[in-house]
Amino acid sequence: MVVAVLGCGYWGPNLIRNFLQCAEVEAVIACDPNEQRLEAVRRRFRWVRTTTSVHALLRDPAVEAVAIATPVAFHHELAAAALRAGKHVLVEKPMTRNTREATELVMLADAMGCTLMVDHTFLFTDAVQKLKELISSGELGKPLYFDSVRANLGLFQPDVNVVWDLASHDAAILLYLIEFPPVAVSAVGMRHYYALENLAYITVHYETDFLAHFHVNWLSPVKLRTICIGGSRRMVIYDDMETSEKVRVYDRGVEISSKEGEEQLRVQYRAGQMYAPPLPNQEALTRVVEHFLRCIRTGQRPISDGAFGRAVVALLEAAEQSLSQCGQRIRLSAEYSLPSLPLLFA
Amino acid sequence: MVVAVLGCGYWGPNLIRNFLQCAEVEAVIACDPNEQRLEAVRRRFRWVRTTTSVHALLRDPAVEAVAIATPVAFHHELAAAALRAGKHVLVEKPMTRNTREATELVMLADAMGCTLMVDHTFLFTDAVQKLKELISSGELGKPLYFDSVRANLGLFQPDVNVVWDLASHDAAILLYLIEFPPVAVSAVGMRHYYALENLAYITVHYETDFLAHFHVNWLSPVKLRTICIGGSRRMVIYDDMETSEKVRVYDRGVEISSKEGEEQLRVQYRAGQMYAPPLPNQEALTRVVEHFLRCIRTGQRPISDGAFGRAVVALLEAAEQSLSQCGQRIRLSAEYSLPSLPLLFA
Amino acid sequence: MVVAVLGCGYWGPNLIRNFLQCAEVEAVIACDPNEQRLEAVRRRFRWVRTTTSVHALLRDPAVEAVAIATPVAFHHELAAAALRAGKHVLVEKPMTRNTREATELVMLADAMGCTLMVDHTFLFTDAVQKLKELISSGELGKPLYFDSVRANLGLFQPDVNVVWDLASHDAAILLYLIEFPPVAVSAVGMRHYYALENLAYITVHYETDFLAHFHVNWLSPVKLRTICIGGSRRMVIYDDMETSEKVRVYDRGVEISSKEGEEQLRVQYRAGQMYAPPLPNQEALTRVVEHFLRCIRTGQRPISDGAFGRAVVALLEAAEQSLSQCGQRIRLSAEYSLPSLPLLFA
Amino acid sequence: MVVAVLGCGYWGPNLIRNFLQCAEVEAVIACDPNEQRLEAVRRRFRWVRTTTSVHALLRDPAVEAVAIATPVAFHHELAAAALRAGKHVLVEKPMTRNTREATELVMLADAMGCTLMVDHTFLFTDAVQKLKELISSGELGKPLYFDSVRANLGLFQPDVNVVWDLASHDAAILLYLIEFPPVAVSAVGMRHYYALENLAYITVHYETDFLAHFHVNWLSPVKLRTICIGGSRRMVIYDDMETSEKVRVYDRGVEISSKEGEEQLRVQYRAGQMYAPPLPNQEALTRVVEHFLRCIRTGQRPISDGAFGRAVVALLEAAEQSLSQCGQRIRLSAEYSLPSLPLLFA
Repeated sequence: MVVAVLGCGYWGPNLIRNFLQCAEVEAVIACDPNEQRLEAVRRRFRWVRTTTSVHALLRDPAVEAVAIATPVAFHHELAAAALRAGKHVLVEKPMTRNTREATELVMLADAMGCTLMVDHTFLFTDAVQKLKELISSGELGKPLYFDSVRANLGLFQPDVNVVWDLASHDAAILLYLIEFPPVAVSAVGMRHYYALENLAYITVHYETDFLAHFHVNWLSPVKLRTICIGGSRRMVIYDDMETSEKVRVYDRGVEISSKEGEEQLRVQYRAGQMYAPPLPNQEALTRVVEHFLRCIRTGQRPISDGAFGRAVVALLEAAEQSLSQCGQRIRLSAEYSLPSLPLLFA
Repeated sequence: MVVAVLGCGYWGPNLIRNFLQCAEVEAVIACDPNEQRLEAVRRRFRWVRTTTSVHALLRDPAVEAVAIATPVAFHHELAAAALRAGKHVLVEKPMTRNTREATELVMLADAMGCTLMVDHTFLFTDAVQKLKELISSGELGKPLYFDSVRANLGLFQPDVNVVWDLASHDAAILLYLIEFPPVAVSAVGMRHYYALENLAYITVHYETDFLAHFHVNWLSPVKLRTICIGGSRRMVIYDDMETSEKVRVYDRGVEISSKEGEEQLRVQYRAGQMYAPPLPNQEALTRVVEHFLRCIRTGQRPISDGAFGRAVVALLEAAEQSLSQCGQRIRLSAEYSLPSLPLLFA
Repeated sequence: MVVAVLGCGYWGPNLIRNFLQCAEVEAVIACDPNEQRLEAVRRRFRWVRTTTSVHALLRDPAVEAVAIATPVAFHHELAAAALRAGKHVLVEKPMTRNTREATELVMLADAMGCTLMVDHTFLFTDAVQKLKELISSGELGKPLYFDSVRANLGLFQPDVNVVWDLASHDAAILLYLIEFPPVAVSAVGMRHYYALENLAYITVHYETDFLAHFHVNWLSPVKLRTICIGGSRRMVIYDDMETSEKVRVYDRGVEISSKEGEEQLRVQYRAGQMYAPPLPNQEALTRVVEHFLRCIRTGQRPISDGAFGRAVVALLEAAEQSLSQCGQRIRLSAEYSLPSLPLLFA
Repeated sequence: MVVAVLGCGYWGPNLIRNFLQCAEVEAVIACDPNEQRLEAVRRRFRWVRTTTSVHALLRDPAVEAVAIATPVAFHHELAAAALRAGKHVLVEKPMTRNTREATELVMLADAMGCTLMVDHTFLFTDAVQKLKELISSGELGKPLYFDSVRANLGLFQPDVNVVWDLASHDAAILLYLIEFPPVAVSAVGMRHYYALENLAYITVHYETDFLAHFHVNWLSPVKLRTICIGGSRRMVIYDDMETSEKVRVYDRGVEISSKEGEEQLRVQYRAGQMYAPPLPNQEALTRVVEHFLRCIRTGQRPISDGAFGRAVVALLEAAEQSLSQCGQRIRLSAEYSLPSLPLLFA
């Protein structure tokens, strides 16, 4: 198979490197309007052809699949053009700038019979796969809350705020892990430096007594990458800054009872074992690329298919709307609800 | 001076122990309706007299000061009675169940010429005094945000939710540190076990581009006690779970400029030195008790006087109202605004 | 039972507090030559009688047991006098200044039919009991090494060096945990400030391929309390500075094989799960005191009896001799070998 | 300049990558007896020529410099051949298997007027340069001790023990930082799996009251990389496992005085500020390669020249001898003493 990678900035070369390692990929073509970037690609990867012309690429019948790693503003146009040309598409996260664009891509992929996948790399990490397994197997019990903190100093993006940049990860992980659909989003944030938020707190509401909350921050003195999920049977912390034991499962919780005739509640705390499961430590992007190619080959739907990418966009869109409306709760459309998603290696 | 301590549950004995260490305290009288608790006090403290009668205590002209460490539901009634009897009052946090009660106590203390102080112990820690110094001196620059996390497994309270229990600390620290007044509060939370919230996210809004946020949680697998304050010149993290270097000051930040004629923003990150100032490590409650006695002696207003305690209550009251109104932003009355507060040892 | 506590400096009051909590202790008598210390004891503990006369105490037939918490130089003389007077004795660690003194006490206790126990408090902690269980049950497999680091800034002792002060803990823990006897000790150290070592590295040699090593240091910028034990099946780290999960068990290790005819070794690394068992969190000294009283009552030998205390002293004595002989390996006498020791709650 | 890299296993490609980034390097030739490895090099680096013939390489007058990244057993033979052919040589650490071989290379380099440098990469890290600066500037005061721990699970080496593998780093850092010469080495270790030590404790002795100690371990459940240096004015900890603030400087220490006529020592502890200086975060190997090329160009002696590499080998050789002699103290020859070494960017 011949694969084209559009966009050779920060992420594109990582895609190229991973595609080159796949036995079924015969050739990779890199495309960027900036000739200097192409030169850098040619220096680094011996076997890669390069071009500045997207149109030539898309007209080339040898190209079966296209990966899009451009700024988000170009995702919709390029993906639509590639799908119309009958190419399978892997697009970087966030999928598009809004749900309207996302819906168009979903429909186009369906119409053309092409695979459309969004590169939500985090879903393919050992850690998130382990979280999914803990929830799916019932080990955590009933999920009670999801709390994430994603903070560091920079990188301030020129075109998207901290929500679209950082919270896109948390939104994807949340939607992948939790089977029941969110119903509303609220968000507050701050613009300390320019017209885009560099700090935001996002709450995702459900019809049940489950709650999710993201703290995303480009202005933190230290780098934090923590997700805590409380369940009725176990609680789990995923700290991506740890070099080992990134996922820790705690047999801790609360049981509350009240004896008949007693006013006082009886609260019992369970403080049992903590354990850190071993994680295989494969590069997540390798799995993304392999999953994309397998979906093309077999026709199976990607875990992070167009509908998934659109649900993430819908959540971020609602968060942004809430930001501009003083934290008002914005309802999420039920049409973006997702089916129950599988483990990568089920 | 003779001091009475009302309430000998968990906190009362700590007050007794600290009052006993003060040279100017001639005697401490412990009062509790539960005779078993009084027996425990007598066992532990050789020099303490005990009584089950509040009324006898308050009628005793030898008693000059009263410390109230009962459940919060009794704070108002007992403090009012003590003030009416001309006693100086130190009351545990939160001061009262609502601002109406708090206002009554403030007015009563003024009318009687008595000292009224709320035991917001955290203000008197080395760490919070250091934070105050960093902000007052201008070392942090303009404050940009205040983010706190106060989480652990339990203790579920039978009468107050996690906001009144844990966020009372954060509210007090915030109001002490930040000189400009908050204008509104919003909050979301969850009741996973009974009729009181065990998890809440509280946002405190200001007229400026400053924002404060508290995450309080009784259902966390690990104990977290972290406050991060971002300033335009420095950022500081106070991690109370560290056994040393609880306060760390980071010379980190962002400068954003745009050259004339250029569209692209230029963002520069400053990643300078981190330092942890030495902290003297005196027990905070000792300082509380000494401050209370000094204020009685000199007539100076306590740092955490009735008006301060009321401002904390107003903030928590607004948070609770927001919780019951789906996270609606609740405006704070300007009448509870505080003057600029000093360092303890200025 | 009436118990006397000799020595009311730092540790004595902790013994008094714990004896007072035991139902079978009717009275505690505190003894110290310094009247000020006795006054402090009387202030703190309502029910304690005090005296400056050891001799009166030991002549008092009501006194059944004596706990000795004086400087180590007085341990032998006081313990011997108490044993001769037919009292049961609990003596602080290290038991004596040398093995000669220790042997005298062991023989005296045997002759008098009295219980003699050394307060090696660490053995009675949740953590060390868990380590013992992990080793006894075979979960760790064959023990391969014991590595401990015990470092902090101060407290420089006027009468003993860092080996007798800090390594006495490690020696006791090692001898308790490892069933086979050490055969030699070597040590190097440094005296940076006065005539006693403030830093030392101690190696304990065995006849097998097991090795133990202690790093003890009064001149460390941070406080460290870590023991790592490598076993053929599991490895365990006990970090006493952690506020929770002090003991962590790692399913990690190495398997080395060589195929016939192959020169190259095949090394396989096992990097399985880590888990932290829950620990009950009772005060160790409470267990020490209860164990002492139970041994008196039942006649059972204490875990840390005189022979155990002497084995610790023998190890420290050898370390000190090695320090003075440029790190020469000093053989340990087989006569101080210990029997296999049980768990506290077996 | 044309540079040849001999040995394309784990480290060789890192050297190739760095040489390729240097403007003055016109071409890099990779050499390895294993054609598969050369194929991997050609895939990864577009501009690199490859050969299996060392002899052809060394006869090629265009080749000015040779970097040797083979197993240590080949270092001497290859380096000697390269020097005899008039090439400048950069050789991986440890320089040779023994001091005899090292001395031959030093003499050969002198005789041929060629630059001989040993790739002790750690010396060129931000962290070690900062340590050197702290010591050279007097900020730490008089050095009192050097304590390092270098532990992890594996990688067991087939040809060298843990001392030659891991302690070579500590030996190099110690010799670089501390200006006065070590006089003796003692070491104990264990072979748990095969004929080479997988665990060792090494002590480096000085004529002064300074002491150095390395704990190196291939059988640790967790990865540890810590160096602590105690000085009379400051103490510093370098923890290479931290993702930021790798170097922390503590204003902590001890002052001991004794008043005339008083027996008791007066000990005062200084527990001042801790700070973590910012570190520039350049790849150390880039600096190694640039330093090597600059030394060739200017004729200046490399920081880690042949004499330095030999001093490291002498220390390791003595440690190994001590291992085989039950921890006997092995004297170090004064002929391997080093001059005072400069900062990289002095």
